[in-house]
Amino acid sequence: MFDSSFMDKVRAKNPLVHVITNYVTVNDCANVAICAGGSPIMTDEMKDVVDISRISSAVVLNMGTLNVRTVESMLLAGKIANENNVPVIFDPVGAGASRYRNEVADRILKKVKVAVIKGNGGEIGFLSGVGGEVKGVDSVSTSNEEKAVSSLAQKYNCVVAMSGKTDYVSDGRTTLKLSNGHDLMGCVSGTGCMLSAVVGSYVGANGASVDSVAAAITAFAVAGEIAGPDSAGPGTFKPKLLDALYNLTDEQFDSMKKVE
Amino acid sequence: MFDSSFMDKVRAKNPLVHVITNYVTVNDCANVAICAGGSPIMTDEMKDVVDISRISSAVVLNMGTLNVRTVESMLLAGKIANENNVPVIFDPVGAGASRYRNEVADRILKKVKVAVIKGNGGEIGFLSGVGGEVKGVDSVSTSNEEKAVSSLAQKYNCVVAMSGKTDYVSDGRTTLKLSNGHDLMGCVSGTGCMLSAVVGSYVGANGASVDSVAAAITAFAVAGEIAGPDSAGPGTFKPKLLDALYNLTDEQFDSMKKVE
Amino acid sequence: MFDSSFMDKVRAKNPLVHVITNYVTVNDCANVAICAGGSPIMTDEMKDVVDISRISSAVVLNMGTLNVRTVESMLLAGKIANENNVPVIFDPVGAGASRYRNEVADRILKKVKVAVIKGNGGEIGFLSGVGGEVKGVDSVSTSNEEKAVSSLAQKYNCVVAMSGKTDYVSDGRTTLKLSNGHDLMGCVSGTGCMLSAVVGSYVGANGASVDSVAAAITAFAVAGEIAGPDSAGPGTFKPKLLDALYNLTDEQFDSMKKVE
Repeated sequence: MFDSSFMDKVRAKNPLVHVITNYVTVNDCANVAICAGGSPIMTDEMKDVVDISRISSAVVLNMGTLNVRTVESMLLAGKIANENNVPVIFDPVGAGASRYRNEVADRILKKVKVAVIKGNGGEIGFLSGVGGEVKGVDSVSTSNEEKAVSSLAQKYNCVVAMSGKTDYVSDGRTTLKLSNGHDLMGCVSGTGCMLSAVVGSYVGANGASVDSVAAAITAFAVAGEIAGPDSAGPGTFKPKLLDALYNLTDEQFDSMKKVE
Repeated sequence: MFDSSFMDKVRAKNPLVHVITNYVTVNDCANVAICAGGSPIMTDEMKDVVDISRISSAVVLNMGTLNVRTVESMLLAGKIANENNVPVIFDPVGAGASRYRNEVADRILKKVKVAVIKGNGGEIGFLSGVGGEVKGVDSVSTSNEEKAVSSLAQKYNCVVAMSGKTDYVSDGRTTLKLSNGHDLMGCVSGTGCMLSAVVGSYVGANGASVDSVAAAITAFAVAGEIAGPDSAGPGTFKPKLLDALYNLTDEQFDSMKKVE
Repeated sequence: MFDSSFMDKVRAKNPLVHVITNYVTVNDCANVAICAGGSPIMTDEMKDVVDISRISSAVVLNMGTLNVRTVESMLLAGKIANENNVPVIFDPVGAGASRYRNEVADRILKKVKVAVIKGNGGEIGFLSGVGGEVKGVDSVSTSNEEKAVSSLAQKYNCVVAMSGKTDYVSDGRTTLKLSNGHDLMGCVSGTGCMLSAVVGSYVGANGASVDSVAAAITAFAVAGEIAGPDSAGPGTFKPKLLDALYNLTDEQFDSMKKVE
């Protein structure tokens, strides 16, 4: 079972994480990766991607504001990562919301061997075929979460994480249910994207496993729990969330984590 | 006359707002839309725009960091919105500051039926032909504000809002003068863009009218008034502004609004 | 020797600063330029760049998330700036980290007459040929900092600034060593980019010189020193840093600056 030693390892290794993400939440992704202990680099130019993906400890592909240029960059980064045994984390933002997003998610999953898929209930529900409802880039609902993560993990032989009020992580055999977090996390744009950057940092330092992904989710969600009661609203919550993640102690991590 | 019931309706409907905006202020636009009660989605890829604009309750087009690719996306989003009776809010950032911006503003206004134009004094002054001075993307001055908003509203048969120390909203017949706000709003990059995202949320839930646009401006400006005195400078002001908008009560809205 | 009069001049002139920068830190760059006293405009479309660079007081080129389109925009903005005697500040983010970044830095330095090069130890070490180590976009170390800044300044006949725990500024004859700052500045994504935007504001108002660049660095680093002890972590530090820069007094500037 995972514990705070996963967090310690991120901080000790300070893994380089190559993140291709959307321009809405990219700054928060960079800062949250730093506060988690990683060293993020955001570059999406085809000519630059090869050199950077190759030397990274993890590659995060987030299709939040995908376009025809950056989709090719994501596919190339994924290819280079695969060739160099760099784990790929895929965040299929908005899968289920438009035909183009569905096509791109399908292309990435066919051409790139992903180590982790991290999405919300709607996205994971859609990709797993179990169903789910998507409204724009926000998940509305899904039924049967455990079945969705488990079957998607089996389909792609990877770790699947579904974030929400309760988070689920599965590799198709073991499925963990995580219950940390704070309501304000749902009122800030991009907490899902931020989580993917944290997962990239944890996987970069600890390898891809149910435990390393669950540890990343726990660190982020526990930070939210610490920051939440101290915040007057979503605006002041975000900087406090970063502070809490940066200052998170082993004792906080281990005593506050809620997993079953 | 508008009151806090417009705000309540945004929160109750949680309208999906498709925002194509600049990469400088896009994160603030997303967060302010959430705090206003909307559900923002930012996507600017032509292949994605059709599916997203069609299902949105409002489309916001902001030309802050326009480029040849995203201008085409804005035109397509506008076309799809028009075909589906989705109101379009246009923020002509920097109109008057460069020939390219002038051309693009002209193209958008010719090809897209806009429901609302929201700009600063320089931009509205330029578009209305009444005059105004623009320095980069910041307005310097305009004379005769009421004439500018009113004549531009008549020209395009839409609602026009001019933001500044005093805000003006007109549909060519009724013109409202709004006096809420705080000086620090002028010291944060993108408060104009943020306002457009709030207007999108209000119009998405309430339809486009002088009242719905004035209600959006009032909510945002009253939030600024609440956050301002509590802030040491522009840095801490921005998160507090988001908090204040998120927590705004009907009573605050109705008792603090200044309109004539 | 520089003093707070350089800061006063930025606030009095409010120079228009054209910034082409990366989409990770662009919002912070805009806000820090405002808080420093400048008036930033971010535009990277070739068709827009000519009109904007020409009327600006300084042009900042930052290759943090370069792509083939924006590299051409940077070269064009540099050309227009050179033709109109507008000083160019170049921030070679990630030079040394990938072949493409090295090629682009080389192209820019060959085609554009830059007034200031501002980078971290790894970047300046790489460009000067003195050596340095780069990990992604973060500098790891450099040896012989004074030699690196001085020789690079001589090579391109410009002012060179190397930021780090200690900052160095040189024009090839005079080299200043600056020791202000706070550790949290290294825990926020983009403080280097933000500094370049501050340098743009100072150079725009005061011209390019060792003194004007050193004054910019001092203002930013002293603001960090003021904000640091008051912050619980990197998240709350950033807004407080902006506040401190915005509120910086002549007395704080002059009494806290550490230069030799």
